This record gives sequence, C-alpha cells and structure tokens, in this order.
Amino acid sequence: MALIVQKYGGTSVGSVDRIRQVARRVAKFKALGHQVVVVLSAMSGETNRLIALAKEIQASPSPREMDVLISTGEQVTIALLAMALMDLGVRAKSYTGSQVRIVTDSAFTKARILSIDEGNIREDLNAGNVVVVAGFQGVDERGNITTLGRGGSDTTGVALAAALKADECQIYTDVDGVYTTDPRIVPEARKLKTITFEEMLEMASLGSKVLQIRSVEFAGKYKVKLRVLSSFEEEGEGTLITFEDDQKMEQPIISGIAFNRDEAKITVRGVPDKPGIAYQLLGPVGEANIDVDMIIQNVGSDGTTDFSFTVHRNEFAKAMDILKGIQAQVGAKEISGDDKIAKVSVVGVGMRSHAGVAGTMFKTLAAEGINIQMISTSEIKISVVIEEKYLELAVRVLHQAYNLDQAA
Amino acid sequence: MALIVQKYGGTSVGSVDRIRQVARRVAKFKALGHQVVVVLSAMSGETNRLIALAKEIQASPSPREMDVLISTGEQVTIALLAMALMDLGVRAKSYTGSQVRIVTDSAFTKARILSIDEGNIREDLNAGNVVVVAGFQGVDERGNITTLGRGGSDTTGVALAAALKADECQIYTDVDGVYTTDPRIVPEARKLKTITFEEMLEMASLGSKVLQIRSVEFAGKYKVKLRVLSSFEEEGEGTLITFEDDQKMEQPIISGIAFNRDEAKITVRGVPDKPGIAYQLLGPVGEANIDVDMIIQNVGSDGTTDFSFTVHRNEFAKAMDILKGIQAQVGAKEISGDDKIAKVSVVGVGMRSHAGVAGTMFKTLAAEGINIQMISTSEIKISVVIEEKYLELAVRVLHQAYNLDQAA
Repeated sequence: MALIVQKYGGTSVGSVDRIRQVARRVAKFKALGHQVVVVLSAMSGETNRLIALAKEIQASPSPREMDVLISTGEQVTIALLAMALMDLGVRAKSYTGSQVRIVTDSAFTKARILSIDEGNIREDLNAGNVVVVAGFQGVDERGNITTLGRGGSDTTGVALAAALKADECQIYTDVDGVYTTDPRIVPEARKLKTITFEEMLEMASLGSKVLQIRSVEFAGKYKVKLRVLSSFEEEGEGTLITFEDDQKMEQPIISGIAFNRDEAKITVRGVPDKPGIAYQLLGPVGEANIDVDMIIQNVGSDGTTDFSFTVHRNEFAKAMDILKGIQAQVGAKEISGDDKIAKVSVVGVGMRSHAGVAGTMFKTLAAEGINIQMISTSEIKISVVIEEKYLELAVRVLHQAYNLDQAA
Repeated sequence: MALIVQKYGGTSVGSVDRIRQVARRVAKFKALGHQVVVVLSAMSGETNRLIALAKEIQASPSPREMDVLISTGEQVTIALLAMALMDLGVRAKSYTGSQVRIVTDSAFTKARILSIDEGNIREDLNAGNVVVVAGFQGVDERGNITTLGRGGSDTTGVALAAALKADECQIYTDVDGVYTTDPRIVPEARKLKTITFEEMLEMASLGSKVLQIRSVEFAGKYKVKLRVLSSFEEEGEGTLITFEDDQKMEQPIISGIAFNRDEAKITVRGVPDKPGIAYQLLGPVGEANIDVDMIIQNVGSDGTTDFSFTVHRNEFAKAMDILKGIQAQVGAKEISGDDKIAKVSVVGVGMRSHAGVAGTMFKTLAAEGINIQMISTSEIKISVVIEEKYLELAVRVLHQAYNLDQAA
C-alpha cells in the first residue's frame, strides 16, 4: 500500500465526462489498496473567464479580490470530483486550500507556500477517504485567500506530497511524458523513462511546458518522487523525474533538445568598456519588469564593448524604446534588434563528464548552413540563438546527431 | 452617521453593468458618511447552473460537496463588487461566509446560523472600508463550508445587521416595496410605506415573494429595522417593516390582499369520526414529504366526518395516489380533488380589534357570485379557497371593498 498524490490539470477536468474519467482512474488506484490524495486545477478556460470578468470591472483588479475570485475555479472542480467518486461508491472529501490549511505568504496572485497542516488529510485518509484538494490556492496567516500564480496546482501537488511524505507525486497532463524533443517537429522523438531534476529544470525553462518549473524545484528540494503521465491514456508509466545519484553509471550524454521561439534579440554596440555599464544598460529594462534571458558580453576592443541579450518577444518593442531612451546617456554607438530568432538548446547531465558535446552541436548546425548568432552555456546545457526559419531543421538534425531516436 | 447593511439579490448583480450600478449606490451611501456592509447573492442563474452540473454527476449530490460547489457563486460576486467599488475610489474588502466567520450548524444545504464573529467587519468599517459579505453561506464548527438554503442571502443580511446592531437592514430587490396586492392584477394597488412583521409573514407565506420568510422571522426576533427597496430605482423609500408597537393608534384594518394559485384541494368524505383519524390520513402524506397547507375538518354527523386540505399543485397527483392507497384501510367513502383552485387572503393586524372584516369579505365575494369552497382564519388573516377562474376578480373587488387604493 502506497500513499500517492495525483495532480490533474485543467484539460483533465475540463468537462463532466472528463471528471468522471478522472474519478474512474482514482477509484482504480484506491481499489489497489493505495491511499490517494487528488489535487485539481480549475476546469480549462475557467480561470481565464474569471480574469476577463475582473478586468471588465477594474483595469488593474485588486490582487486580494482577484484571488477571492479565481480561487472559486478549483473549488468547483474539487466538489464535482468528490461527487463523481461517491457516485462510484468511493468515499471522498474535498478541501479548499484554506480548509487544508495551506498557509502562504500574503503576496496575492503569486503567493508562496509557508506550511501545510496535513493532519486533517491524514485523518481522512486513514478513515478510508480519497481526499480531493484544490490546487493553486492557500490562505495567509490572517485568513485571506491567496493563489500561487499560474501553474501553481503542480506546486500544490508536490508540496502536499512532501508534507505527507507520499511515495509518489503523479502529475497527469495532456502529454504522456517528457520527450527527447517536440514530436510535432521530430516524429522520431522518444519518450524518456527517466530524466534528472536538473535536466527537467532546463527543459521546462526552455519551453517544454510539461511541468511548472517551480514545482520541479520544490520536488528537488524536498526529494519528492515526481512522475509525469497522460490523463488520457489508461496504461503507460510516463516519465519519472529522478535524482542524479539514483541514475545508472552509464548515462546518455544528452537527454533532449529544447527550443523556444518566443524570444527576441537586442544588441547594443560600442558602449564604453567600464565597470557598471551592464547595470546602466539592463537596470532600466529590469525596472520596467521585462525579464532578460540570455545575456552575452564579448571581450571589448578600443575601450568599447558589445552587449547582446534576449527578451520575450512581446516585450521587444518596449525594451527597444527604453534602450533608445538611454542610448545617448550610456554612450552606445548603435542599438539593433531582431525578433525573428529562435533559441535551441541541448540538455544533458552527461555533458559534465563528456567532452565534445558543444563541438557536435556547432558542426551539425554548420553542416546545414545555419549561422549561430549567440551562444550561452551552463553545466548541463548549451543554447544557441539562430534565425527563426531554421528552427525545425536545427532541432531535427541535432536530435539525429546525438542519436536521441535510439533507446538508451 | 449610520451603520447600514444592504443586501442585493441575484438579479441586482446579474451582470457586470448591474454590479457597477450597485457599486455606485453603495458609494453614494458611503459619501453621505454612513458605514456600509453589503451582502450579495450569486449572479442570477449561477446557482442553478452549478446545481445542474452537480446533478449531471451524481443523481443525489452529496450535501457537503454541494455546499462547497454552490458557495462559489457568491464568492465570485463579492470579489467583483469589491473591485467595482475600488474602481470608484471607495475602499472595499470582501469576506466569504467562512472568513467572517458566520458559524452555522452542519445541516448542509439548509444550515442555520449559530453565531457571527463581527469583530473583523467592525474593524474594517472603522478603518473606512465598505465590507462586502457573501450571503447564503457559512462554516460549521469543524471548518466545513455550509449554505443556508434558498433565499438565505436575506437571512445573512438580517443576521449581520443584528450582530452589528446596524441602524437599518435594506433588502434591495426587483420590486420597489410591498404592495397592497399584485399591481399586475389591480393597477390601483398601492405601495405600503410600512407593514408589520406579522403581516409581512402572512403576505410572504401567501405568495408575495418579496422577502424570504425566514429572514423576516429573524428580523422580528432580533428587532432589526428592515426595509425593502428597488435596486433599479435611484430614489424611493421602499417599505419599512415595523413592529406593531411602533405603529400609530389608527391602523388601517387591512394591509393587503395576498393570493396563491399554486395549490390543489383534496377532500376525503365519510371517514369514521374517531380519535386519530386525522393522523391516519395525513401521516402518510407527510411521510412522502408533501407539505399540507390549509386543513379543514367539519363537525361530523352519523359517526362520520369530512376532511379537506390543500397541497402544492405539483404534488397533487402524488397525494391523491397515497390517499387512494389507504382509502379502504381508513374506511373513507369518497376521495375527490380539484387543482383548479386559488387561495385569496386578506391580511391585517387591524382585524384583531375590528369586527366585521370577515363579513365584508364574504359579502363582497357573494355579490360577484363567487362561491367559497373552504375558509381558514388566523388572528390577522382570513383565507378562502375559490375556483381559480375567479381569482383576479376576487382580488380586485376585495382590494376595493377594503379601500386599499386610498392612502392610509
């Protein structure tokens, strides 16, 4: 008998039929003798509907009231799933975040979990109930309703698994696991049986939107065994996210190819090569709440240097305006930008101990005539920026170059 | 400066525009220097939508989960109204029933209020906030979400007014007050400036669905000054519900004519006139959850007696079936029924001290050739059952006979 936390996203509970389907799956695990805690998102579309309603009333809705409003989405699904379970003869009980209590700080719409009182849940589990918990929400110490921000339901699942010391946290989603790359681009893409937490973090932040990055960090920190599965398939083991220590000695060097076409590149040329110049340039961009992703500064010459960095494509125009506004002040010769770029990354913990990974990447792209505009590396990934039109080609040839279509 | 509790029903908050309209009215009261607590229902249609969703999943949905589900309706409106108030520059803060806390018993879907912690609300009011509270809902002592049942938002308003010792509880609805009778039948019907609690109870239970009867009882018990107003009119003082003691000496004898066309009549003839016979007949009807309204038993003769009673028209067939099933057992000669009837009542505390009220009623109906089938009286009302087709005529001539079209 195991204690399992299962999290189902908005698509998995998007209709009465799908809620019934989730109930059947949960009932199956219960029938096997497991204790099951289910964490749910709102029905797909519901959170957006509520946000739109709020914005119709107040251009920048009060964050406190926004959380009162959107937390109703999961409250609806937990009640409906508990009913669906009872309809199958399975005892079930629902809890809102506030009822659990999942205590958070008071940062409305993006709160962080401080503690979880797991006592009531454990009592209900021991009494034979399936416990259904609203994801994404909590309560601050003064009793205000809070939400954890987008994707927060994954975090609720992992946090509950950590608090309950669950044997496994299963994240059910609309894909059946983590792939070596997007199968829509490379039909040979292969589902990974395991992936390390660090690789998963790099894959997630690079746009393989399987798991919310925050929940992966959380799971890594609290050593929660995390598994990604499809909520639309009856069988299948999904992908298990492992700790590096657990892995066999012989690792594949590269686990996957991630990519992102939501970025734009900005280059500032000929700025004085002196201390504080990076802050002078990027400070005003950060103050405008624009996230900067890759940042590259080359060794300068003639007392000047060049900067390049990438921002989300939606914020490209705004970032360009800000930089042009300070161009004279920082003494930059030229500011140019390009939003027709894409970022491609090879990710793998194996590259720590293997030379030549970067070389293979550069050679493979060069062979196709794809020019690399920017390069940035970390311990377990190499990212390059290329012209957007070459994205699919680059992903395909890299997938082949690292033999990702062959089972490890 | 007064402390006012205002309750708005589902129609009054049925759209973003109407929520804005409520916000403007609340802001006006706030600008006059009053402290305002607002109690809201769910947007019209929302509670029914949620109930339908639940019934799609479970034929008899779990009452505990039903309350988790439908309490989201008011949680949405309180957040939206708080936002709308802030949009007008008015400080506002929303509270769910559980946050207040409105503590109830654990009778899910029909809970009763046990206590209200008004401390937080008072603090917020003193800090200059409008406090917006979800009607219809509460929390039991173990932290489970409960609802008060249909019309429960009125009760929340009155209970909060009692707990806060508010100067007035204003119930905003889609009519602008209590009328001497339904203006759709008698165009001369007059809006009453005041009506006593007892009269209001009789009018409400007889089908003038202005106020939830439970909230009127509650207001009477805790001496809450209750006023019914239109949420769609800018001006107007509505109808104030008063205590009899507060009334002037010279009362109008009759305050209004109530009526009900939702009933059916059943007559059981020739049953043995012996102790226990009423229970033998009506026991099985009650056990089938059929509410019996008027009950009349005439003095018998020849050792037998006749019973007549009325039930809701929707339950007429079911009640007839039950009675025919036990006819032989109780030894009744004949069971007959009629669902083409209507009940008309004259209501007024003045009839306590005035003779001749019943006589006027009977004479007026006789003059129009309207036969009276059943009569039932209480201290402040006289009800008669007549053929349904005469209903409008009866209401009109009675309205005139008691001079209800003339201002008191």
